[in-house]
Amino acid sequence: MIEPNFSKGNGLIPAIVQDAETNEVLMLAYMNRQSWETTLQTGKATYWSRSRQTLWVKGETSGNVQLVKNVFIDCDEDTILLQVEQIGKAACHKGYRSCFYRKLNGKDFVVVGEKIFDPKEIYK
Amino acid sequence: MIEPNFSKGNGLIPAIVQDAETNEVLMLAYMNRQSWETTLQTGKATYWSRSRQTLWVKGETSGNVQLVKNVFIDCDEDTILLQVEQIGKAACHKGYRSCFYRKLNGKDFVVVGEKIFDPKEIYK
Repeated sequence: MIEPNFSKGNGLIPAIVQDAETNEVLMLAYMNRQSWETTLQTGKATYWSRSRQTLWVKGETSGNVQLVKNVFIDCDEDTILLQVEQIGKAACHKGYRSCFYRKLNGKDFVVVGEKIFDPKEIYK
Repeated sequence: MIEPNFSKGNGLIPAIVQDAETNEVLMLAYMNRQSWETTLQTGKATYWSRSRQTLWVKGETSGNVQLVKNVFIDCDEDTILLQVEQIGKAACHKGYRSCFYRKLNGKDFVVVGEKIFDPKEIYK
């Protein structure tokens, strides 16, 4: 059976998260085995927070959960691609639709992403 | 000036690679500062090969280079998203269009991706 290989990245693999409808890339997060298994069991994207060192059900605070529609694995079995339905429209904790809301323009990055909510109103 | 933060991942950041036209996710690779700067200077996606421990100009063997069209940075400045024109149609060294050519179906992954070339014919 094909499974993610968690050994290469000290127990963690990157998971790319993409909107299932538009293919927009929303974010990248990390998974350990527990978060991988929880994601499959619950159908809600669940990651490992490197900063908080804890299991992280995406959207548990903001309500912006990610319902998993499709799961892909890469050729080396060390990266996962999730296609999700993003509840609440915004994936980024800074209130943008996508975490990749800044685009390189010349020598600096400029904001091009759509802001959906004000983080101060959500994370109190 | 906003820049990738290479310090979190021991000098490496993940770069998600997406087709600039279709938004299909093609692969994920890693960049160190040198490969980041080379990518910007040359306009050709250049990574750091973790297995070979060397700078890796994507497509230097197969000819399937990636011409960088847009560059995005995420909210934490620790992940890059490249939108590219994939020369030769295939990004994956196994001959598929995308490295994510296997999709979870029930409890196992099945091949759903399009095979473009036979690796035995390319990497001799």
